[in-house]
Amino acid sequence: MMIEQKTPRSFAFSRYLEPIASVRPGEEVTLFTEDAFLGRIRTEADLPSQVLGKYLNPQTGPLYIEGAMPGDILAVDIISIEPARDWAVSCMEQYFGGLTGTETTRLLNDPLPEKVWIYRFDEQGMLICDTNPRLRFPWEPFLGTIAAAPDMEVIKALTPFDQGGNMDVPDVKPGSRIYLPVKVEGGYVFTGDCHANQGEGELCGVALEISARVTLRFSIIPDTPLSWPRIESPTECITVGSARPMEDAARIAYAELIAWMCEYGWDRYDAYQALTQAGRLSVGNMVDTVYSLAAKADKDLVMHP
Amino acid sequence: MMIEQKTPRSFAFSRYLEPIASVRPGEEVTLFTEDAFLGRIRTEADLPSQVLGKYLNPQTGPLYIEGAMPGDILAVDIISIEPARDWAVSCMEQYFGGLTGTETTRLLNDPLPEKVWIYRFDEQGMLICDTNPRLRFPWEPFLGTIAAAPDMEVIKALTPFDQGGNMDVPDVKPGSRIYLPVKVEGGYVFTGDCHANQGEGELCGVALEISARVTLRFSIIPDTPLSWPRIESPTECITVGSARPMEDAARIAYAELIAWMCEYGWDRYDAYQALTQAGRLSVGNMVDTVYSLAAKADKDLVMHP
Amino acid sequence: MMIEQKTPRSFAFSRYLEPIASVRPGEEVTLFTEDAFLGRIRTEADLPSQVLGKYLNPQTGPLYIEGAMPGDILAVDIISIEPARDWAVSCMEQYFGGLTGTETTRLLNDPLPEKVWIYRFDEQGMLICDTNPRLRFPWEPFLGTIAAAPDMEVIKALTPFDQGGNMDVPDVKPGSRIYLPVKVEGGYVFTGDCHANQGEGELCGVALEISARVTLRFSIIPDTPLSWPRIESPTECITVGSARPMEDAARIAYAELIAWMCEYGWDRYDAYQALTQAGRLSVGNMVDTVYSLAAKADKDLVMHP
Amino acid sequence: MMIEQKTPRSFAFSRYLEPIASVRPGEEVTLFTEDAFLGRIRTEADLPSQVLGKYLNPQTGPLYIEGAMPGDILAVDIISIEPARDWAVSCMEQYFGGLTGTETTRLLNDPLPEKVWIYRFDEQGMLICDTNPRLRFPWEPFLGTIAAAPDMEVIKALTPFDQGGNMDVPDVKPGSRIYLPVKVEGGYVFTGDCHANQGEGELCGVALEISARVTLRFSIIPDTPLSWPRIESPTECITVGSARPMEDAARIAYAELIAWMCEYGWDRYDAYQALTQAGRLSVGNMVDTVYSLAAKADKDLVMHP
Repeated sequence: MMIEQKTPRSFAFSRYLEPIASVRPGEEVTLFTEDAFLGRIRTEADLPSQVLGKYLNPQTGPLYIEGAMPGDILAVDIISIEPARDWAVSCMEQYFGGLTGTETTRLLNDPLPEKVWIYRFDEQGMLICDTNPRLRFPWEPFLGTIAAAPDMEVIKALTPFDQGGNMDVPDVKPGSRIYLPVKVEGGYVFTGDCHANQGEGELCGVALEISARVTLRFSIIPDTPLSWPRIESPTECITVGSARPMEDAARIAYAELIAWMCEYGWDRYDAYQALTQAGRLSVGNMVDTVYSLAAKADKDLVMHP
Repeated sequence: MMIEQKTPRSFAFSRYLEPIASVRPGEEVTLFTEDAFLGRIRTEADLPSQVLGKYLNPQTGPLYIEGAMPGDILAVDIISIEPARDWAVSCMEQYFGGLTGTETTRLLNDPLPEKVWIYRFDEQGMLICDTNPRLRFPWEPFLGTIAAAPDMEVIKALTPFDQGGNMDVPDVKPGSRIYLPVKVEGGYVFTGDCHANQGEGELCGVALEISARVTLRFSIIPDTPLSWPRIESPTECITVGSARPMEDAARIAYAELIAWMCEYGWDRYDAYQALTQAGRLSVGNMVDTVYSLAAKADKDLVMHP
Repeated sequence: MMIEQKTPRSFAFSRYLEPIASVRPGEEVTLFTEDAFLGRIRTEADLPSQVLGKYLNPQTGPLYIEGAMPGDILAVDIISIEPARDWAVSCMEQYFGGLTGTETTRLLNDPLPEKVWIYRFDEQGMLICDTNPRLRFPWEPFLGTIAAAPDMEVIKALTPFDQGGNMDVPDVKPGSRIYLPVKVEGGYVFTGDCHANQGEGELCGVALEISARVTLRFSIIPDTPLSWPRIESPTECITVGSARPMEDAARIAYAELIAWMCEYGWDRYDAYQALTQAGRLSVGNMVDTVYSLAAKADKDLVMHP
Repeated sequence: MMIEQKTPRSFAFSRYLEPIASVRPGEEVTLFTEDAFLGRIRTEADLPSQVLGKYLNPQTGPLYIEGAMPGDILAVDIISIEPARDWAVSCMEQYFGGLTGTETTRLLNDPLPEKVWIYRFDEQGMLICDTNPRLRFPWEPFLGTIAAAPDMEVIKALTPFDQGGNMDVPDVKPGSRIYLPVKVEGGYVFTGDCHANQGEGELCGVALEISARVTLRFSIIPDTPLSWPRIESPTECITVGSARPMEDAARIAYAELIAWMCEYGWDRYDAYQALTQAGRLSVGNMVDTVYSLAAKADKDLVMHP
């Protein structure tokens, strides 16, 4: 199924919107995702404070997943992510980013200058910056944002939360399966914010933003509790926690990974021990309204007795 | 040079102690390092609260590095780390660890139980736990602690700080070069706390603790300012920041990595941009008095115009 | 006007609900507010995990304030707060409170025991605990929660945010005027969570919860930007910031108080200086989804040249 | 006893220094304390980055308290604090303060400008600023810094810690008694950093700094464990916790106050409950290497059954 929603998009994860499509489990769905800036930053002269409005990170959705019921887990396979244009963009915004005062870390300092970087695919398929060729990075796309909708709240699309959201975790990529808790009938799935590449922490707050065509497939694990998102890659079990300060996001992620291990017969303190020696902790973002951290362990460790 | 200091050891990074040896730049030095528990936890029955005293993490040192002067950088090449015994130990301590209330995160909850895991080398050279064979990890040793001494303070050996200390960063391993700021004549170098392996964050607070024989070589970069430790691996530039909350450690590490890039001709905002897309952020510890985070980038990115 | 809404109530600040009443500026409105537990904890035997459902902190509202438009400030005068019953309740909940592991500060420790304290008014009008007479506190009521609704999000009633919410700041009391930014036509005001008394930080997470009759009066300051809630008491200018970690809440509150001072002719660095010497910082809550801190200065300092 | 130490002073809390005097319990001791800037900032033109060196906050001490032994508590009565000059000073420093990037909260923003405010006593005994008469504050002096020395570490004088230090808590004032844990024979007491006045949080990082003559009296409570400093005012029991993030300082302070209450017969959960309704939480500093928070309760509540 190809879903060609262009507008309107949602800037929040909301169960109160009309679904843009109804999707059957097992069916492959291809979506267009706009970039986080609505495609409005196209040149070095397009300063964020001038061309952007108050809403950012437009989401494609909600998708109504047939048969998904509160208390289920929705499994989302990322089949493919293709670029929908030949350039990507990053920028420095005022009062946003990991090394500047923000609306949350409120300071009296002057903001950093605004600055835009435009990247284009070169002959090797790398994204190279128009203004500085040292800025050249491979096409390693992932979905910055994927979520199921809460039963009561409407959460803005810049926020990661316990049903996913703007996690900015690069493991949400082709070949991975994402597990999200369902809170409303149909799940109400949103996705968007494709990043052509991103480092750990998304330091300045803006990865290589690009529009994309994304192919997903959904399945339902009925009546199974889940507290926070999980990601299963071909080799790893990954849990994502989102909170501030950053240590609380790390605590959630690791506690959830211990819970996952216990489902495979681990004693909880032995799991705590195992992750002490072999766990990995990856910072998705250190810039959003809350930070996202991913705890990881090899499937071999988690699953094999 | 072989330095056979057994006792006394130091539980702090202190310029006020008598050096145990004077070392010439370029000379290879082999040291014995005791484990963080002074070798006192040997069986599952050796509960930390009973066998340990108030001082932990004994350090071998101070070493007086000939010619090192305040304002210099001391470069330390880790030549090799060999186990000095055939077993390693980890444990859960009361009021210590990443998923429990601590002396800093003071709570009213009962502490977690104390628990000891003993590991031995198996035939494949892996460390396998006596009580649970799923706990089996490769020998990937590094120095949990390495520091030069402050000019005024005496800092306890459990603490990471701007001259190194208990960073628990696994990149302090054979093949890496560590850069530390010198604050006193002779540098007064301490090291210890060998870990046979450790995951990111050192989750329960105790890696695979082992005594070791460590071979180091020192060199001096005269009269060069340095704010925080750097690590140069064969392929990566790594900076370490230590602070609480965790986001502040991340900020320090990334800001220092930008500074390093600027030494190679990067514009500072382009460096900020580059790390946004290609930086890596690794949690050394999320358990010590302050947390240590390592920011990393490929040498190719940092150094090659 | 007396508004006798009993049910349904809202567990979120939402513009999507039908207003329960339309209110004219200047008119006095008397509301009934249910306690944060829906009145379900009535005895020491009513354990929270057994008698409470998933939704807490029911709000009375939304009130549609006639003439309130996005971009206006809504001023709310707290005229009076009267108890609607003769007892109040506090309790310890699992995974909630300032000195225990929580859903955000996720730990492996066992939770604290659940415990309920019931208080009744004594002859002096003090609230005295049934089970321990040392627990005896005066009737000093305030509204734990007051908010105007966001334009897009729906925020659960346990959360404080930039339009008010569950701030748990005891200055929201009779005699005070609260200023809230309006984001939707009619403002959509919610209030509830009356506390008969509360210390700074609301340490265990539950103040002296009581149902109440609350009389309010609204006025509109047209077309005036406001970033975060303000409180004007007879003697003080108070700003409230809500964030984690706690220092970020403090930064917001003090930065907003500097902004307020600048409206009265202060140079911003002189205001920074003035608050350094004479500012007060009060912790509303250290337990909610984000913490609320109130920065305060005497009106004489803020307003008089 | 009058101790006229002018130089040298200590910039750290250290047991390794020679005591400047030996003091008997019960004896009144009068000390001169230099201001935190060594008296070097005297006019608006004395910019901190130019006139200050690397060491700040000079301490008067160590005092050897006769009979004080490790494991004892040292009680310090603040008898009086008199100004030793007719002016005080505050300033904005680069990379220091509550609303700016710092060495810990490392950012890329330009620093705030440096700025100095000089205050003089007016006819009413108020301190009034030379350049802005709205900046006028009463003489409410206290000791920003008071500490006993650790047994192993040397801690720089800008740091608050579990034996006191640079707490910047205004309750360390005439009429209060400070309780500090003794770790070395003689206690090795340091004090300094008199503030003529200070708001909660010491927002810009610099209170009204002044040199002073301080009169103290010491007594010893033998063989009594104490984890963190306590302050007893005529009406309040006060505990001080120092940590980052700020919520951890709050947790320590409140947990210590619960411990104090338990010494007066409180059940620990009832004490938790009592502080929820009647505790106060005051931010000493939100600017130092770690933050200090003071938890407070009325003596009537704490001590009277």
